[in-house]
Amino acid sequence: MPKISHRAQNMPASPVRKLVPFALKAKQKGIKVYHLNIGQPDIETPQTALDAVKNNDLKIFEYALSEGNLEYRTALNNYYHSLGFTDLTTDNFIVTNGGSEALNFAISTLCDDGDEIIIPEPYYANYNGFANTFNVNVVAVSSTIDTGFALPPIEDFEKKITPKTRAILICNPGNPTGYLYTREELQKLADIALKHDIVIISDEVYREYVYDGKQQVSMFEFPEIAENCIIIDSESKRYSMCGVRIGCLITRSKKIHDAAMLFAQARLSPVLLGQIAATAAHVNDSEYILKVRAEYTHRRNVLVDLLNGIPGVICPKPKGAFYCAVELPVDDTDKFAQWLLESYSHNNETIMVAPMSGFYSNPELGKKQVRIAYVLNEADLRRSVELLNDALQKYKIEFNL
Amino acid sequence: MPKISHRAQNMPASPVRKLVPFALKAKQKGIKVYHLNIGQPDIETPQTALDAVKNNDLKIFEYALSEGNLEYRTALNNYYHSLGFTDLTTDNFIVTNGGSEALNFAISTLCDDGDEIIIPEPYYANYNGFANTFNVNVVAVSSTIDTGFALPPIEDFEKKITPKTRAILICNPGNPTGYLYTREELQKLADIALKHDIVIISDEVYREYVYDGKQQVSMFEFPEIAENCIIIDSESKRYSMCGVRIGCLITRSKKIHDAAMLFAQARLSPVLLGQIAATAAHVNDSEYILKVRAEYTHRRNVLVDLLNGIPGVICPKPKGAFYCAVELPVDDTDKFAQWLLESYSHNNETIMVAPMSGFYSNPELGKKQVRIAYVLNEADLRRSVELLNDALQKYKIEFNL
Repeated sequence: MPKISHRAQNMPASPVRKLVPFALKAKQKGIKVYHLNIGQPDIETPQTALDAVKNNDLKIFEYALSEGNLEYRTALNNYYHSLGFTDLTTDNFIVTNGGSEALNFAISTLCDDGDEIIIPEPYYANYNGFANTFNVNVVAVSSTIDTGFALPPIEDFEKKITPKTRAILICNPGNPTGYLYTREELQKLADIALKHDIVIISDEVYREYVYDGKQQVSMFEFPEIAENCIIIDSESKRYSMCGVRIGCLITRSKKIHDAAMLFAQARLSPVLLGQIAATAAHVNDSEYILKVRAEYTHRRNVLVDLLNGIPGVICPKPKGAFYCAVELPVDDTDKFAQWLLESYSHNNETIMVAPMSGFYSNPELGKKQVRIAYVLNEADLRRSVELLNDALQKYKIEFNL
Repeated sequence: MPKISHRAQNMPASPVRKLVPFALKAKQKGIKVYHLNIGQPDIETPQTALDAVKNNDLKIFEYALSEGNLEYRTALNNYYHSLGFTDLTTDNFIVTNGGSEALNFAISTLCDDGDEIIIPEPYYANYNGFANTFNVNVVAVSSTIDTGFALPPIEDFEKKITPKTRAILICNPGNPTGYLYTREELQKLADIALKHDIVIISDEVYREYVYDGKQQVSMFEFPEIAENCIIIDSESKRYSMCGVRIGCLITRSKKIHDAAMLFAQARLSPVLLGQIAATAAHVNDSEYILKVRAEYTHRRNVLVDLLNGIPGVICPKPKGAFYCAVELPVDDTDKFAQWLLESYSHNNETIMVAPMSGFYSNPELGKKQVRIAYVLNEADLRRSVELLNDALQKYKIEFNL
């Protein structure tokens, strides 16, 4: 049998992948599983986007331009102008197959083998996978649940910078933490990027979903790092259309843009139909965004209050995105999450959560934490927390905790 | 300014990329440019696929499974069963964002830095880009226009195999050559793969477009290399829907499949809408395929006869795909292709061709060759050859050849 590459052997498995067979078995036993483990919202895609796909009159689904079709890049450019970044033009955007491809392009453009990217942990687990694909090392700087996962002291970043450091990657608002970085925190990151001439890669795909009247501060608000900043964006979460696979890489740096374009050209074309959907979605979207934001705010409020009402559970109130990073009074959330699917049910129902060991470079740090996505409706969320509460009691007894 | 990675610095530019600004300028001068340089057919996408997209009644464009949705993998599996590969199941398929992503997955699954992939040249230029993305070296084995680009002697491959060789990559039928490998040639490749325990990556995206009553022999017809074979497939050319970005990686090797799945999981999901289009396209597609095959056959016959009628032009008759690799009586096809756009026109018309230097590891070997795609209708092809003939005469005079 032929060899498999080391890069494949070292690929981290998705944090919930090992749970999937247990979820399937539970379903086969007739148990209903509430999926709190994934970022697939139950929110409807905007009607404008659905209609644009249905009403397309193309006769050939042909290649899009490697950088994305002009019509869609114009929609993106208008959107970024509405955010205040009026210096951008359609030439600053590279349309990608989801935010995932944008991240891959960013890493391959900046990093060679053995290079390093600093990421505050806990972080979106697939960052590990993308880095590993290119033999790039993730260097973690730990944030903690006590501060609600605020930016760790900038000295902690400073200490980790080496000649191999190419970038600091942040997610703002954060998956899995829901933390929203303050202008002051971001200023510190901009300063350190400039000082060491490294790049801030800012994953801002949850930008619209920020609560309590707050507003996300984009890394683009720091013009001094024009040459040192890449924004990762995506339509997946904004418009609940994760399956269209439309994201983009945006930078003011012509040098970075032109280099990233070489990878975009090699894979020929981003998705055509998704650009049609996304172009339409951007038109007069404020009512949709407000409605969805209100829905997520309500779900968060319900969920966080209920969770914090369970003895031993700690859930900082997320300021954005649609995840909570929650500490549970258990010995090991990997074990607990499997137990929920394998050995627990109440009235033939159970829940699936994402253990957070895979969201840390040191799995021990996430051993008591799970990520809960509030992508279900209020009734399902309420029932899910009821199940969690009941399960925690039974788990405690079963394992003598 | 931050550093750009060596992998980005070493990315080969697309062979026609440098010509694009000249094509734009020609158009701005009011000159019509016939595009013989790209693989974007003017053939309509099947009505079944267009209708499936228009008639979808989804309310959420949600994530597809990382391996592709079961409905589409069932369509693919049925199609492969119809080709005679009845041992396959839906578990053998990983749906990808175009054949491009399938190639990326294949290379990253098999190769580490400094590993080698042997490819008969001339080859599809983006193979270089994908290999370079992972710091993998392409080792070329030269085929020549005199044999119509037949498989080079197997001894030439044998000589290039080192401990770092992970795979031999072929395109069958070939882009840019149109060559169709015989069963005997493929048997030799299967034998050498087994002997050295390396993998054959067989890019078979043009499988349906094979002419003169011939039939493509798939690498899957050699069961002895079940553990050593990856097929790259795509709906782009089969159904003239390059923009849906639906391809797949298929292997009988569970080891390779499971490793490739790790990369598929990291990027979450292939395109949802393209799977809907492709699932529909596969239903009762024989009339469509026959019609398109007849059209390409006719175009090929017209084009090749006309090209071979020009003094000094050599064009082997392609047996498949929709490209000709053509030798021209010029000093340098990069220069000639630019001149066609910059300095030549006849009745305000000119042509754009793909110089073939970028299709060889040693650019010198392609210095007199261009790739012509017969993706235009007969009238446009006739006019294009007329222009080529006229241009060759004027070029000869202008440069004293």
